[in-house]
Amino acid sequence: MRALWLEDRELRVREDVPRPTGETLVKVRLAGICNTDLELTRGYYPYTGVPGHEFVGEDEQGRRVVGEINVACHACATCARGDHTHCERRTVLGIVNRNGAFAEYASLPAENLHPVPDEVTDEEAVFTEPLAAALEIQQQVAIGPGQRVVVLGDGKLGNLVAQTLALTGCVLTVVGRHEAKLELLEKRGIATGTPEARRADVVVECTGQAAGFDEARRLVRPRGTIVLKSTYAGDLTLNMSSVVVDEVTIVGSRCGPFAPALELLKSRKVDVKPLIEARFPLAEAVEAFAEAGRRGALKVLIDTSSNPKI
Amino acid sequence: MRALWLEDRELRVREDVPRPTGETLVKVRLAGICNTDLELTRGYYPYTGVPGHEFVGEDEQGRRVVGEINVACHACATCARGDHTHCERRTVLGIVNRNGAFAEYASLPAENLHPVPDEVTDEEAVFTEPLAAALEIQQQVAIGPGQRVVVLGDGKLGNLVAQTLALTGCVLTVVGRHEAKLELLEKRGIATGTPEARRADVVVECTGQAAGFDEARRLVRPRGTIVLKSTYAGDLTLNMSSVVVDEVTIVGSRCGPFAPALELLKSRKVDVKPLIEARFPLAEAVEAFAEAGRRGALKVLIDTSSNPKI
Repeated sequence: MRALWLEDRELRVREDVPRPTGETLVKVRLAGICNTDLELTRGYYPYTGVPGHEFVGEDEQGRRVVGEINVACHACATCARGDHTHCERRTVLGIVNRNGAFAEYASLPAENLHPVPDEVTDEEAVFTEPLAAALEIQQQVAIGPGQRVVVLGDGKLGNLVAQTLALTGCVLTVVGRHEAKLELLEKRGIATGTPEARRADVVVECTGQAAGFDEARRLVRPRGTIVLKSTYAGDLTLNMSSVVVDEVTIVGSRCGPFAPALELLKSRKVDVKPLIEARFPLAEAVEAFAEAGRRGALKVLIDTSSNPKI
Repeated sequence: MRALWLEDRELRVREDVPRPTGETLVKVRLAGICNTDLELTRGYYPYTGVPGHEFVGEDEQGRRVVGEINVACHACATCARGDHTHCERRTVLGIVNRNGAFAEYASLPAENLHPVPDEVTDEEAVFTEPLAAALEIQQQVAIGPGQRVVVLGDGKLGNLVAQTLALTGCVLTVVGRHEAKLELLEKRGIATGTPEARRADVVVECTGQAAGFDEARRLVRPRGTIVLKSTYAGDLTLNMSSVVVDEVTIVGSRCGPFAPALELLKSRKVDVKPLIEARFPLAEAVEAFAEAGRRGALKVLIDTSSNPKI
């Protein structure tokens, strides 16, 4: 089958990637390029194979599905604790030891798949995975009316995080550098601007850059919480003693729950369509990555069902 | 009055330090050298003045007292939130803009002072401040029976942290390098050893060194919590993306509540006396610091009420 292939940080479209077998076969319809995919090409994690973990497809019965990306072993101590997302022997779609969704076909265990409600279009459903990741924050930190919350980053993830946090009634400010992106948020009634230093109860770091942490430290109040959503290649240097003195809490946050994400898309409480920057056929997936990596680009989709560029 | 003086990282005993005025005057009886004091001499924080923040003394009515070290302004936004420990304009006894307890006299606002129960000796009461700091952990993280908890460090603070955590019924292991110190813990029924990697629900970092963080990361389970108690000079470099992937929570933890600390000393649920390494008169406070800085040293006390060495 046709698929995008990543090896030694190089991307190319191949026609000879074997169609996956076993598990539930999914014919991919549409897949999204995530910052993690871009970071894989920068060496964030030494992955060889088909990338892509945000997708909507159809199963062998023709039902539209989206899929949770972590495939658990159901045997390790972490699985025994019920924490399948963190299975110590997991494979991760398009990220760890499992070919991903920038391909004509992908496969996942049936338990990972969620049917897409009829009300949700493909273009919306492809955002289920990053929207679930945004919702993970609220599984970890109690956020409610009146709390001062700052989201750092006005990109794809920052936008989804802001839209989900806005539903909590918190006092939300998004900090970003791109006028057009900030405008998208303002159109939805989300404030953007320059928050006061050391006053935020919660700061969510979605910049995708190590420098975002310093800004989060500057803005969070003593005893406040920094939520980290960014994964990127490279280390971070920080003054940990100041974290102790200010008794700051730092929470790493990754994948989240699909069911409420699909519910938000169905009920139109979150609007993802303005986040679509461009759409490329699978044959031009390398060009799609170039576009997605352009500074300021929002979500670039790869249409795996059609060859001609739309 | 006689006092120990820190300036440009150099310590010396002076006879001409003015006795503090205003607030409540406390005649210091006994004061303890904390790792933070040692770090001040290594440039952790640019402090000039009398160091020392762990003490027992007597007020002008002759009552024995211990004192909370953070003096709040009662005017800033943080104070308005009721979080006086984190007052943005606070002074801190012997650490920030306030002469400390390695002196014949110190002073604090009356609200900072706690009377010492008759059942608690001076040698025990001087541990109230670090014991309160140990108890702060349980103000921040719910720790109870069955949880796997690892304490990194068998020093002064690690010992107190372990003793307070042992009272929760958690499954506790202390990791240390000093046989005599590990024996102190084992005598109290606290397990020491080499915990399995990635299995601890909570790891408390009390090593006082940046390397302790890496060890905490190695031992904590996915979605587990690392509590940081160490403050030290210098920065830490870490892979923050792995904190995101494992969804680890990092909690900075500093000063804690005095009332339960005094209660634990009174009820003898915590035994601090074996932690006393040596006792020096104030006149020999520089030598006391040298002893406290010796690798493996436990608590060194400075007897501010008497001149001759005991």
